[in-house]
Amino acid sequence: MQAALEDPKILSLAAGFTDSSSLPVEAVGRAVRRLEQKPGPPEHLQYGTNQGRPGLRRLLAEFVGGHDGSTVGSIDPDSVIITNGSQQALYLASRVLCEPGDIVLVERPSYFVYLDMLKGLGVDIRSLPESPDGRIDSDGLTSFLDRCRRDGSADRIKIVYIEGYFSNPAGVCRTNDEKREIAEALNASTANPVVIEDAAYRDLYFHHPHPGDSILALSGFESIPCLYLGTLTKPFATGMKVGFGICSHHDWRQRILWLKSHQDFGTANFNQAILEEIVLDGGLEEQTTRLRKNYLGKMEALHEAMIAEGLDSMGWKWTKPQGGLYFWLQAPVGLDTRMDSHFWQACRDEHVLYIPGDLCYGNDAPNDRVRLSFGVLKPDDLARAAARFARASRRIVVPA
Amino acid sequence: MQAALEDPKILSLAAGFTDSSSLPVEAVGRAVRRLEQKPGPPEHLQYGTNQGRPGLRRLLAEFVGGHDGSTVGSIDPDSVIITNGSQQALYLASRVLCEPGDIVLVERPSYFVYLDMLKGLGVDIRSLPESPDGRIDSDGLTSFLDRCRRDGSADRIKIVYIEGYFSNPAGVCRTNDEKREIAEALNASTANPVVIEDAAYRDLYFHHPHPGDSILALSGFESIPCLYLGTLTKPFATGMKVGFGICSHHDWRQRILWLKSHQDFGTANFNQAILEEIVLDGGLEEQTTRLRKNYLGKMEALHEAMIAEGLDSMGWKWTKPQGGLYFWLQAPVGLDTRMDSHFWQACRDEHVLYIPGDLCYGNDAPNDRVRLSFGVLKPDDLARAAARFARASRRIVVPA
Repeated sequence: MQAALEDPKILSLAAGFTDSSSLPVEAVGRAVRRLEQKPGPPEHLQYGTNQGRPGLRRLLAEFVGGHDGSTVGSIDPDSVIITNGSQQALYLASRVLCEPGDIVLVERPSYFVYLDMLKGLGVDIRSLPESPDGRIDSDGLTSFLDRCRRDGSADRIKIVYIEGYFSNPAGVCRTNDEKREIAEALNASTANPVVIEDAAYRDLYFHHPHPGDSILALSGFESIPCLYLGTLTKPFATGMKVGFGICSHHDWRQRILWLKSHQDFGTANFNQAILEEIVLDGGLEEQTTRLRKNYLGKMEALHEAMIAEGLDSMGWKWTKPQGGLYFWLQAPVGLDTRMDSHFWQACRDEHVLYIPGDLCYGNDAPNDRVRLSFGVLKPDDLARAAARFARASRRIVVPA
Repeated sequence: MQAALEDPKILSLAAGFTDSSSLPVEAVGRAVRRLEQKPGPPEHLQYGTNQGRPGLRRLLAEFVGGHDGSTVGSIDPDSVIITNGSQQALYLASRVLCEPGDIVLVERPSYFVYLDMLKGLGVDIRSLPESPDGRIDSDGLTSFLDRCRRDGSADRIKIVYIEGYFSNPAGVCRTNDEKREIAEALNASTANPVVIEDAAYRDLYFHHPHPGDSILALSGFESIPCLYLGTLTKPFATGMKVGFGICSHHDWRQRILWLKSHQDFGTANFNQAILEEIVLDGGLEEQTTRLRKNYLGKMEALHEAMIAEGLDSMGWKWTKPQGGLYFWLQAPVGLDTRMDSHFWQACRDEHVLYIPGDLCYGNDAPNDRVRLSFGVLKPDDLARAAARFARASRRIVVPA
């Protein structure tokens, strides 16, 4: 992958990076100047606290509470931890819970960096049962939990990890019913896992926010330790890397904070101060609105190019996402998309890069999925990349 | 400690924070404006790489190489990893090496956050043997390593951790001979630990740089995996949190990078881009020069206040540091300085806070040491804090 990325002719549909031309230079400059002009010592350049700026934590509690209508005002700023991207919160929260051999339940497919992290922790990754239409199968989950009770492994189930909003890679959202059914199955079982909801793409919808509430607001989750993950900078300026976790459970939160104090004793206060200014002056919402239009346009451009290049008639299947940064494709029957497959090599020869879908599963990976990102490339390069992808595909797929 | 910090009347000599009034607002503003004006997409607001900006890694290789005269040009930028403060590099490097029960050797005293981290990893913390004058005792180290060979624990010794420059808390520097003797003892033993040299305070000298070379430049360390830790922001603007590790060992470095990819997939690119500008335009050296004078003045102010308040005649002992942010004091005979001791309580009553020295040791802590920081407070507040500390001391010490 590294060698491929260093190919100067490559057009990458792999990286989950964001669009460089639309970055908010002016908003950041404005915030920095405002911080410069504040009276008193420039505390934004001083160390902050391990947990994060109190002012920004208050804003985040309101911000997420505002998404979940019913919880407005009910998120405690003390439950918010500001991290180096939401990734760090995910690491901290999982690290303090998991020992080798523990079980973590994930969606099929799931976020591949998290799966790699779990492998690093020696965790046994299992998939949440799902029905043929891709919904989470709560009866299957109940059966699984029951089997674990019988074989004595229920105590080893530490985490249920879901991406409720425009998931990476599948672009899927979860309904309130699906989430409530997870809570019901857990509440009825002897297992006591936490639930982590990763909402990194929640604000990056194309037309409308997904109407589902987060696990912080849904009934059934009251007695389950919950962590909600979000980011201020994926929908703003990814280079600033300010994410957060909202953790409802006191002891788990204290362990997360203890580990964070060992790792870095707090996320850079400077970045937090800038983001606080930008949330307050409306610059975050302004930039996110701009990005939504930008990504919608690029999603449509890649979709149209894939159609124009005949990928659908070759047997590739996909649906248009309603948010996020990715297309999730199923290959024509018999086409293997894994790293170093013939198809991978053909794409390398055509100088186009994708994420092999099998990386997005635990031990039960299909070998015919592909993640394509429209985050980085401009529309004309997306069209060129689609053409290359189609040429590689034609070299492998034998026409019927 | 938290309760004490929230006391509004408190004067804290505890925190290792830096001076707020001397923060480089203009230099940061200048760098941000220069980045804004660069032609092309504003890549400083885009995700960076996991390892860190290539340009900044080249500058860091030159910067540290320049400190160690003999290694100019010999540090490979590929061995540099940019982290969220040097703290993160210390965590990553230790985390990938240590399992519960492993042994880490530290100086007496050592950096208490690292000791807390090691306790979190279940590590058996041992002290480097030292001679009565505080030098590292290489004969004692050889004997220790030999005992470990005989009892079968040599393989469990994973790390030797030293702070070669103005250590936290003791303000000690290590000579080239002391470091070379560590290498000789290790090379002659069956143990294969790595050596980590934490040089976070190297640039914060008062009059002259410490003339010692780092482990990266000293003979004897060629076959020992070495990690050098530094920071660009402690001697500049701590709120920006850009540290680095220079790791000579390929496999260890790859493991560090793998773990970093799970934790955050790279330090905020924005901060790195700003620091790159600031190193290039001389702003780093300018600010560090200013800070050296500032901290020298504050060190002298606290020293004079401690003398004026009669701490020495009460039996407190200390030496003036030549760099760093701390005084390291030994209490009068019989005075216990630990958390919740009578003296601690007396200081709380006087609204002054210190770091109990026993936190800076593994299992062999004396109970009569104190770390006082002159980083945060202004000279007049330092004098007030010294007066409070002396009043608390008089309440406990029975005059001879």
